[in-house]
Amino acid sequence: MSVTAPAISSFLPPQRTLMGPGPSDVPQRILDAMARPTIGHLDPAFTDMMEQTKTLLRYAFQTANKLTFPVSGPGSVGMETCFVNLVEPGDKVIVCGNGVFGGRMLENVKRCGGVPVLVEDAWGRAVDAAKVEAAFASHPDAKILAFVHAETSTGAQSDAAALAAIARKHGALTIMDCVTSLGGTPVLIDDWSIDAAYSGSQKCLSCTPGLSPVTFSERAIEKVRARKTPVQSWFMDLNLVLGYWSGEGKRTYHHTAPINPLYGLHEALVMLAEEGIENAWARHRAMHEELKHGLEGMGLSFLVPAEERLPQLNSVILPEGIDDAACRARLLNEFNLEIGAGLGALAGKIWRIGLMGASASRKNVATCLKAVATVLPA
Amino acid sequence: MSVTAPAISSFLPPQRTLMGPGPSDVPQRILDAMARPTIGHLDPAFTDMMEQTKTLLRYAFQTANKLTFPVSGPGSVGMETCFVNLVEPGDKVIVCGNGVFGGRMLENVKRCGGVPVLVEDAWGRAVDAAKVEAAFASHPDAKILAFVHAETSTGAQSDAAALAAIARKHGALTIMDCVTSLGGTPVLIDDWSIDAAYSGSQKCLSCTPGLSPVTFSERAIEKVRARKTPVQSWFMDLNLVLGYWSGEGKRTYHHTAPINPLYGLHEALVMLAEEGIENAWARHRAMHEELKHGLEGMGLSFLVPAEERLPQLNSVILPEGIDDAACRARLLNEFNLEIGAGLGALAGKIWRIGLMGASASRKNVATCLKAVATVLPA
Repeated sequence: MSVTAPAISSFLPPQRTLMGPGPSDVPQRILDAMARPTIGHLDPAFTDMMEQTKTLLRYAFQTANKLTFPVSGPGSVGMETCFVNLVEPGDKVIVCGNGVFGGRMLENVKRCGGVPVLVEDAWGRAVDAAKVEAAFASHPDAKILAFVHAETSTGAQSDAAALAAIARKHGALTIMDCVTSLGGTPVLIDDWSIDAAYSGSQKCLSCTPGLSPVTFSERAIEKVRARKTPVQSWFMDLNLVLGYWSGEGKRTYHHTAPINPLYGLHEALVMLAEEGIENAWARHRAMHEELKHGLEGMGLSFLVPAEERLPQLNSVILPEGIDDAACRARLLNEFNLEIGAGLGALAGKIWRIGLMGASASRKNVATCLKAVATVLPA
Repeated sequence: MSVTAPAISSFLPPQRTLMGPGPSDVPQRILDAMARPTIGHLDPAFTDMMEQTKTLLRYAFQTANKLTFPVSGPGSVGMETCFVNLVEPGDKVIVCGNGVFGGRMLENVKRCGGVPVLVEDAWGRAVDAAKVEAAFASHPDAKILAFVHAETSTGAQSDAAALAAIARKHGALTIMDCVTSLGGTPVLIDDWSIDAAYSGSQKCLSCTPGLSPVTFSERAIEKVRARKTPVQSWFMDLNLVLGYWSGEGKRTYHHTAPINPLYGLHEALVMLAEEGIENAWARHRAMHEELKHGLEGMGLSFLVPAEERLPQLNSVILPEGIDDAACRARLLNEFNLEIGAGLGALAGKIWRIGLMGASASRKNVATCLKAVATVLPA
């Protein structure tokens, strides 16, 4: 015994308004759900809830894919689950890079022993479908196309339907990051023929961070089953996870699921179904229009061209001479308002204002416009 | 749009008494903490809480290790984090197998490209130190010794101090699974010179599942820094995670931490510090004695010899002719009591009765004894 008990008391977080790139505001209904009594991960009541969660996620993803479930980890684990299962050593993967998260996909491909082919677009722009077409022309042996539907680092949205169609034409599978789009703008897995997609719980679903909804097509599962090498991750190996989440026959123990966060996700998805996903998309769009109107009235402009812009993540160009960090600190300290900073080359140059899930509300837009008008010099 | 909104309502879990191998009962104080308002993962208030959590975990692990933090995933991710960072392709690893979780360590070593040397003991027994000594004699080039301190599948506890000393003598690092021991029986990372250890939030810490406390010695970090090959997992790469959890200089974004579950873990650790860890160990021991007295009074016996027995996980041999599943269903349905089944070769032969964290209470012992007496034929 060498370490004595530290004198630390319970943590009482401040009440913020969350308008960064996630987490977004978590409604009281979801917080209350997470505080319900913990039960076992093999309890029949819990496995019933798992089945409901899968059904609700199929609605959110607009898919009939049987293999649709929340990975027990943040979006980065959902991402890695897609790559470690679908990319075998030597597989050529076309990766679209137009922000931080495309870069992370590239890193994943390398660590799986894949051979990445990078298609680059400017940060703040959508992926250029013509460049992807050209990449397939130069690399007809590419087995996978990986792209980010909604780049959280810039607020640009790419044409997922067009990109997936190109991959399909060339016989490649698609992996899509829809972390920031799911629940905020249309994500139509089946209509677009996406083979693997991952999202996060803390964006437009308005739940606590830490869970990553994923979905896989039959073609994707076939590729996993036909692998010649084992999946390098034990935890993420879909062959093992399937036994736990499949709901077919005997449910085999794989890992202990995060019970209470899953109560929260279930509640968030029930709320989405109650609102209707098309209504949720319309709400995100309407709140974006209100915010845009206000910000443009202050003379601010957007990083992303209007037709490529995500309504739920607004990248605003900072006026010259503004002290980024000092302004955001004032927003936090004087208004309890969190907005996002720029990442990488965009650090100090943009703000990212999120309107995701419950944060896409008239009240939040008004709070944000008032606060921003106060801290920015007229 | 092809999938219509399912008619699913909020999930209201039953109130169970959790006496399986985890999750254990989560106190209301911890459930309440998880329902506090979500804040951002880069909010100064949150990063202060992260630092407190690290301090509290150092107390739980009895270590001064700087790199001590909760991995954003279940215990299996904590396990894999240890292996993918410390095992380089070609590294010889002595793995002690005396239950399910030693087997999972072996699988991890293989998937990292390591060369495992398996030291086997019977399920239900502690690891035999003499066999480990012999393994090092045959494999003097072994770089790592991996063992499970408290086998969750059997309830056997091994002599971690003795095993770590053998590894030390042979210049090898140690990886220790203390998922079921942390907070329940002594885990003395520094006194024992353990280099890497992982645990879970849902056992003797009595928090919701989904977080895995880990700790790494300076020697372990040196091995990670000296790697010739990149860590195969992007999410688990300690070189990247360090930038987020280190608290040194600028905190770089790595992934979005699971905010509300971390509120819960913080509260659980505050409660452990309030009780005093030695008092917590004594409570687990005392409740085990009460339970044992009652079970032996019914004529039941234990799988594990007394001197190798974990107080917090009691593997009881089922009398001949008992219908295991039917009895456990009665416990659940008539008494709202969850206990654990046997795994692998022990399925149908033992019950695993947990007394972990808040479940190690006089009330739970009484509930369990009454329920078991009711369902077992006299």
